[in-house]
Amino acid sequence: MQKSQIHSTIDWDKPGKQHGHLYIPYSYNLAGWANLMVPVTMLKNGAGPTALVLAGNHGDEYPGQVAILRLARELTPDNIRGRVILIPCLTIPASKAMTRLSPLDGKNFNRVFPGNASGTVSEMLAHFLTTVLFPLADIVIDIHTGGRSMDFVPCATMHLVDDLAQRRKMIEGTEAWNSDIAFMYADVAGTGLLPVEAERQGKIVITTEMGGGEIVTPAVHRLTQNGLRNVLVHFGVLRGDKAPRPKPVRWVQALDREDYRFAPESGIYENLIECGSGVATGQTVGLIHFLERPDREPVAVTANAAGIVIATRGPSLVTQGDCVACIAHDVPAEVLG
Amino acid sequence: MQKSQIHSTIDWDKPGKQHGHLYIPYSYNLAGWANLMVPVTMLKNGAGPTALVLAGNHGDEYPGQVAILRLARELTPDNIRGRVILIPCLTIPASKAMTRLSPLDGKNFNRVFPGNASGTVSEMLAHFLTTVLFPLADIVIDIHTGGRSMDFVPCATMHLVDDLAQRRKMIEGTEAWNSDIAFMYADVAGTGLLPVEAERQGKIVITTEMGGGEIVTPAVHRLTQNGLRNVLVHFGVLRGDKAPRPKPVRWVQALDREDYRFAPESGIYENLIECGSGVATGQTVGLIHFLERPDREPVAVTANAAGIVIATRGPSLVTQGDCVACIAHDVPAEVLG
Amino acid sequence: MQKSQIHSTIDWDKPGKQHGHLYIPYSYNLAGWANLMVPVTMLKNGAGPTALVLAGNHGDEYPGQVAILRLARELTPDNIRGRVILIPCLTIPASKAMTRLSPLDGKNFNRVFPGNASGTVSEMLAHFLTTVLFPLADIVIDIHTGGRSMDFVPCATMHLVDDLAQRRKMIEGTEAWNSDIAFMYADVAGTGLLPVEAERQGKIVITTEMGGGEIVTPAVHRLTQNGLRNVLVHFGVLRGDKAPRPKPVRWVQALDREDYRFAPESGIYENLIECGSGVATGQTVGLIHFLERPDREPVAVTANAAGIVIATRGPSLVTQGDCVACIAHDVPAEVLG
Amino acid sequence: MQKSQIHSTIDWDKPGKQHGHLYIPYSYNLAGWANLMVPVTMLKNGAGPTALVLAGNHGDEYPGQVAILRLARELTPDNIRGRVILIPCLTIPASKAMTRLSPLDGKNFNRVFPGNASGTVSEMLAHFLTTVLFPLADIVIDIHTGGRSMDFVPCATMHLVDDLAQRRKMIEGTEAWNSDIAFMYADVAGTGLLPVEAERQGKIVITTEMGGGEIVTPAVHRLTQNGLRNVLVHFGVLRGDKAPRPKPVRWVQALDREDYRFAPESGIYENLIECGSGVATGQTVGLIHFLERPDREPVAVTANAAGIVIATRGPSLVTQGDCVACIAHDVPAEVLG
Amino acid sequence: MQKSQIHSTIDWDKPGKQHGHLYIPYSYNLAGWANLMVPVTMLKNGAGPTALVLAGNHGDEYPGQVAILRLARELTPDNIRGRVILIPCLTIPASKAMTRLSPLDGKNFNRVFPGNASGTVSEMLAHFLTTVLFPLADIVIDIHTGGRSMDFVPCATMHLVDDLAQRRKMIEGTEAWNSDIAFMYADVAGTGLLPVEAERQGKIVITTEMGGGEIVTPAVHRLTQNGLRNVLVHFGVLRGDKAPRPKPVRWVQALDREDYRFAPESGIYENLIECGSGVATGQTVGLIHFLERPDREPVAVTANAAGIVIATRGPSLVTQGDCVACIAHDVPAEVLG
Amino acid sequence: MQKSQIHSTIDWDKPGKQHGHLYIPYSYNLAGWANLMVPVTMLKNGAGPTALVLAGNHGDEYPGQVAILRLARELTPDNIRGRVILIPCLTIPASKAMTRLSPLDGKNFNRVFPGNASGTVSEMLAHFLTTVLFPLADIVIDIHTGGRSMDFVPCATMHLVDDLAQRRKMIEGTEAWNSDIAFMYADVAGTGLLPVEAERQGKIVITTEMGGGEIVTPAVHRLTQNGLRNVLVHFGVLRGDKAPRPKPVRWVQALDREDYRFAPESGIYENLIECGSGVATGQTVGLIHFLERPDREPVAVTANAAGIVIATRGPSLVTQGDCVACIAHDVPAEVLG
Repeated sequence: MQKSQIHSTIDWDKPGKQHGHLYIPYSYNLAGWANLMVPVTMLKNGAGPTALVLAGNHGDEYPGQVAILRLARELTPDNIRGRVILIPCLTIPASKAMTRLSPLDGKNFNRVFPGNASGTVSEMLAHFLTTVLFPLADIVIDIHTGGRSMDFVPCATMHLVDDLAQRRKMIEGTEAWNSDIAFMYADVAGTGLLPVEAERQGKIVITTEMGGGEIVTPAVHRLTQNGLRNVLVHFGVLRGDKAPRPKPVRWVQALDREDYRFAPESGIYENLIECGSGVATGQTVGLIHFLERPDREPVAVTANAAGIVIATRGPSLVTQGDCVACIAHDVPAEVLG
Repeated sequence: MQKSQIHSTIDWDKPGKQHGHLYIPYSYNLAGWANLMVPVTMLKNGAGPTALVLAGNHGDEYPGQVAILRLARELTPDNIRGRVILIPCLTIPASKAMTRLSPLDGKNFNRVFPGNASGTVSEMLAHFLTTVLFPLADIVIDIHTGGRSMDFVPCATMHLVDDLAQRRKMIEGTEAWNSDIAFMYADVAGTGLLPVEAERQGKIVITTEMGGGEIVTPAVHRLTQNGLRNVLVHFGVLRGDKAPRPKPVRWVQALDREDYRFAPESGIYENLIECGSGVATGQTVGLIHFLERPDREPVAVTANAAGIVIATRGPSLVTQGDCVACIAHDVPAEVLG
Repeated sequence: MQKSQIHSTIDWDKPGKQHGHLYIPYSYNLAGWANLMVPVTMLKNGAGPTALVLAGNHGDEYPGQVAILRLARELTPDNIRGRVILIPCLTIPASKAMTRLSPLDGKNFNRVFPGNASGTVSEMLAHFLTTVLFPLADIVIDIHTGGRSMDFVPCATMHLVDDLAQRRKMIEGTEAWNSDIAFMYADVAGTGLLPVEAERQGKIVITTEMGGGEIVTPAVHRLTQNGLRNVLVHFGVLRGDKAPRPKPVRWVQALDREDYRFAPESGIYENLIECGSGVATGQTVGLIHFLERPDREPVAVTANAAGIVIATRGPSLVTQGDCVACIAHDVPAEVLG
Repeated sequence: MQKSQIHSTIDWDKPGKQHGHLYIPYSYNLAGWANLMVPVTMLKNGAGPTALVLAGNHGDEYPGQVAILRLARELTPDNIRGRVILIPCLTIPASKAMTRLSPLDGKNFNRVFPGNASGTVSEMLAHFLTTVLFPLADIVIDIHTGGRSMDFVPCATMHLVDDLAQRRKMIEGTEAWNSDIAFMYADVAGTGLLPVEAERQGKIVITTEMGGGEIVTPAVHRLTQNGLRNVLVHFGVLRGDKAPRPKPVRWVQALDREDYRFAPESGIYENLIECGSGVATGQTVGLIHFLERPDREPVAVTANAAGIVIATRGPSLVTQGDCVACIAHDVPAEVLG
Repeated sequence: MQKSQIHSTIDWDKPGKQHGHLYIPYSYNLAGWANLMVPVTMLKNGAGPTALVLAGNHGDEYPGQVAILRLARELTPDNIRGRVILIPCLTIPASKAMTRLSPLDGKNFNRVFPGNASGTVSEMLAHFLTTVLFPLADIVIDIHTGGRSMDFVPCATMHLVDDLAQRRKMIEGTEAWNSDIAFMYADVAGTGLLPVEAERQGKIVITTEMGGGEIVTPAVHRLTQNGLRNVLVHFGVLRGDKAPRPKPVRWVQALDREDYRFAPESGIYENLIECGSGVATGQTVGLIHFLERPDREPVAVTANAAGIVIATRGPSLVTQGDCVACIAHDVPAEVLG
Repeated sequence: MQKSQIHSTIDWDKPGKQHGHLYIPYSYNLAGWANLMVPVTMLKNGAGPTALVLAGNHGDEYPGQVAILRLARELTPDNIRGRVILIPCLTIPASKAMTRLSPLDGKNFNRVFPGNASGTVSEMLAHFLTTVLFPLADIVIDIHTGGRSMDFVPCATMHLVDDLAQRRKMIEGTEAWNSDIAFMYADVAGTGLLPVEAERQGKIVITTEMGGGEIVTPAVHRLTQNGLRNVLVHFGVLRGDKAPRPKPVRWVQALDREDYRFAPESGIYENLIECGSGVATGQTVGLIHFLERPDREPVAVTANAAGIVIATRGPSLVTQGDCVACIAHDVPAEVLG
């Protein structure tokens, strides 16, 4: 495979704590020889597994960025057994611009894997993860939220991987996040996801949807920060006692394309179902209103099947085709093993 | 005063129900002789007061727009005693663009009163309200939320007007919204507000902050829609029985400049206090983190005084000087009369 | 009145031919001490009236700009009796950007009269016309088209001024353009027009709508260039023989607000009536189609009254409130005198 | 070949009439799990050929979009023999933005064939046409106009395909549009065209240039709508009687690079030749004027050879290298067979 | 005069050192209750004059911003006799955007004096300077450079004020900057300048043009920082010994409109005269080249009169009307007194 | 290799002087059938080598564009021995927009080699150079500057090629530019450079960094123009006498990644070292100041090793990762041979 052009100031084998950067070369109109500098903090102390902890895959998802910035500042090598690599923000230009996609290349970072050593900035970084960082790791944690566009019941999430041993470890790790709900999802919208590449390499991959919308409540910050620490304790990378679950987990999944409800027309969306509530088959989950024509009947969006509304539209304004609701269903016991 | 250039297709004296528009003349590059058409629905039935019901003062505040669109479609003249004038959206170009300010003239509609008959589109419409619609009205209701930029404890709100009779009616109307909290606010950020002009004309003015952020929960939609109907019933414009308060109102106020806490530096804001919770003097309400420098200590924002956090910052990204928290205090009994 | 800050390199009293500029001082980010340079060509030869010939009032109206550029290059002092002042383009930044409004200040130049000596670039130039150029002139010619946004039956146009002597000269001048149709118009969309200020100063004001849309046919260029020359011959400023009318003029007017038909909803407009054709009362002049909903019935726009369609919408895409048709009616004989 | 990620709600084998959509998955900053929804209407009734009818290949070409929206609403299965698949707009984001290229990916849809299943939105849709829709079709109709940038003599058009049987059917189908002129064109500007891929699959491909500029006259709408119906009748897909040609067709072609005349310098273009008129070799077809320098001689553009001007520049403002005229020549009889 | 809405956290009478801010209230789409926070540092120690030191009047002029940031950090009250008020950047949004004009309101801050208490952000700040800060000051120092658009011989500058006592003190202060050249300038481009208002209030006003272009050399930083300190020492506000002039000052002026040379046409400007060199009357100072037409003769710009070129155009690309050279002349001895 | 779609109007074999263009086909929203026209001037006279002379690789680097425009106008075939192909600007849309990257496709032209016949405009032109123009040439000259973003000691530059004969000729040609310093550089920021492809084809490649920043002094214009002529004389393409070096050349190189110093944090950069001066190991070369926090200590950038500062940052505003200094070292004698 082609060699990465990215330069790292971190020595991956050195014990102790390092703050450093990945330097991704690029040009823009105000700097011909520039580097996008991606902060990395690494702590290493003795033998043990390696956890790679990531956030800011999408720029407008901040709870994970804050959680990792806190860990990067607060942890000392004494807290660690093995190695933890912390990257608070993968798509820095998007985080600075409050956008999902990178303003540098217009890419959705979670659709460019396995990446390209001579591609755009996003593709170069994906390639670096694929060829350098994933091979170093045993556990890969990628912290998402619904971002600006979707609200989510705060939950840890995972793919249904085929390898049963890998699946078992991922289920246990997901449950260690201590969210009330755990969500098993399918990729209904494209390919090239970060977790798919990490799973392909056999890693234990833990992801999340820590709420959504631009507002982050203190409760969501706490769940993100505590959950992350607990998962690291669970896997033995962070020393300390594992926090017990406050209540038993409920596993749900949305694997059918029809579980994702899309706006049939552009307008102002009125959400009728609280995120996390149940719906019956055919129930109206929302209405689209038309500002230019107050006399026009609103258009209804209905549930395809009974279940729990795991996610709803963020902004009230919708464009035809935007996802306005995701309806999840209990995971059959046999899947969980 | 100068005559308005705005043309209305509504006959303000005609009984029954009319859907019509205000035509505000303007030019843009794709239409030389264009009108911004502002939808108005009017219902009139016999003697009684006139209520002017407004939303979309700021484009990115949708609960009131939805509530009025529903009323405009659902009400019939039989439901009315007197007259109700419904304008679901005052700043349509901003609502279509999901912005607070009008993209047509860059104006904050709530800072341009009393308006200007030959000014920009926002100024022309403010002038029309000042000279045509406010004089028709007894009650003026202007439904706000925190918009994209702020989260609010959902509450009905009012100014502390000097005229005691006017104040008493406004307090009663505000309480009729049935929000748990009612908020008395001062204008710490500029002049030219819509309610100030309506109050100057002696109207009973009821305003709200129906939550905030881009996500609108069904609970907030319900509070907006039910509260609005209840206020109209309270004033006798809408027929029906007044809904009793679910619990006694708590009146709070934020009249001191220091009650409004601003970001001391640009960065990623982590909100530490749940909207609606109490804080102690000097307590840290939030932290500002720095993505370029994970090693740098975050900067704390603290409470100036004990109270209840009535509003918090919406997006995690803050620019120096953005309001990140508003701390309110119980209103002295003598103010409420 | 305040003194203009605009500097002119033309000597208004000097015989012969001069190419010069008006220098309007302004700053932009790439030049702190800049001038918008507006080209002016002047020819003077002996005694006679002064004609001020203008185009580019709106930047996206090119036939007049081309006609005046040709005259400015081709005329010699021998062709003149008196004085002709030629300004091919009043709003140069808009002409360069293909827009109606000036990109420098967002102004519609035809709404800023009488102007302001210390205002924006458009206001400063309007003030210069009001205080320097109109007083020099006997005849003011301002060549318009429908621009990008409207199509027009190519016609010379005028306001119905009250002064009967002035009106008579304007009617004769308008007819000298030799367009088949002459159009008497009212100002239904705002104040501050260039011709209104020139008329107020008692000038003979001739305007036009030389077709529209972005495409300019050779026939429209010829009508613009020949008509302009013929009007100048008619008033004795240009030497030569006056061209006879190819056919008798038809005078029409659209003085009622309802003559202007606006799009009731945003969508794709299908124009059903050829510009220049007759319509009956209530006839459908166009349909608005909805791309997101091919099953939805189109919305019809109808004629308020019988007449001739003097202008139709340019682009197929319409926003609610855009003018889609203007219906004109024969001018009563007594008005024409 | 790679499987398309596009989901269709149409059952291609089901008799009767269906309104549905193609769902093209994509992300944008306001919606992470969005679909571009492309409306499709299908009618099927018994045995017979399949016609695939397309418009909005370029977003700013509206006559075909309107014609197909009308057919989609008006047709019933009784009108059909075989199957007709109607897509009123291939590049919806461009149609909504009044642009030629898609604002989503900057692509010219008519340059991305055969497409890419994991490419941009335009590439994914081209791939779906190539792998799913073209194989279903016998006849492919793609309705173009000159869009905003060019004016055309309204005409049906085709490529000179090598297969003589295919060519014969295409000539007959092209003539069935009943435009006065039929135009045989070469691809002088790039590769990746929609018709080339359809022709490669052996389909009968009929295209058009239904005028141009942003203004669409009722005559052009009628020619588009009547021509389209007549072609469908000609091929037996639509029941009814074929309309006879109003006058014999004139076949012209522009196969030489020099038939396309480009602006030698940026400026204001004055078109001197009416679209559809003849020109002599060396004749001046237009002049470029310079607004900053009224004294400078205009630059002439001349005809390379005698012929008919089949297309001219739309906007008056030209950038160096823009096509300002296309000169066509009679097709030799032997080509037509 | 109207009361300012700007809130200051500085106590103007308190001895010692304070870092604080001016809070200018405004709204933008991401923050409804925001303040533009303008940093101010004040040092006060005993009796003595007050110096108000300003930079960032234009956002793209950085040497003064850096010099004041250094002083604000480095100075202690012991260094001071009297009071010094330091504002490193007046137009912060422009400094962050690298622009001359404020991106918040499009204003040139140096054209909005005396300001407006209820105007835009720039106007509100100008009003605060006019009504609060200038009255506190004896000496007003406003540090400019040519910004992005012009290069300057680094020099201290002043207006030729009428009051001879004021003029004398300003001449002495200007000379204390120790630049080789001192420049006396006239306002040929508009009104509303900061120094004019300060001079009107009788203040000793010292300004500069510390080079220009985006590159700031260490020599220019040193001249700015040392000159500023020396002027403060000269007026007794800063303790220490005054640095002697390295060589005698040369006073020049450009008071005639023709001293400012403007680009006669848009193109690529080739500067032929080194900034600071002499020119003869009629000498070519630059050439404008045309990229689209390498065969076209360049257009020359010539000197109106003999003198020294005190400033030249920054970027090579010029738009018609941009200033490309400023030619200065020795100041007559009698003016200097 | 795929055939280029670019059409050239130059006959590469014809003696004499030709002005012509390369036509690169593309579409944009205002022109469907457009060509980017790249000016080329060719002079040919008898036997001799071919020099290909290029500038405007990056749009914001003007000295080479001016030098070649002058040569293109001034040279006659008599001046030539062999052939010279002059392209004043490779990236015309960037030159017109004052940007480094092409606004048409966002590409850095110096990173797209060897190009792509069916790619974007930049890629198509790179492919044309690779497949058509480089094969015609013996000497390839590509004139750069630091552009807007970097300042450079004006110098001729080259890569250290492996082929010793090629290297020797390149050293001699580089020295013939008569700059005081000659710079041997490594490609630390990406691949796909123009000179790398030309060198791969065995050409003698001469490049430059003729200063930088937006201001171009007359001295830099002279060095560019005289150096270019002297190199052409040196290789025998231009007739005339070779100018002797004004002083002996100093050869420096920056081949280590650490020679390039990047901004560790965003802020206002104060450059402390004059371009061309020496620095010691660990010396502070610049400071980053923080406008929002005048009390915060600036962050220092230090020299990794002793050397000469060959280049410094252009604009004062820096984003984390921008190059702020490049430190060069004397080239070992054995490298120069």
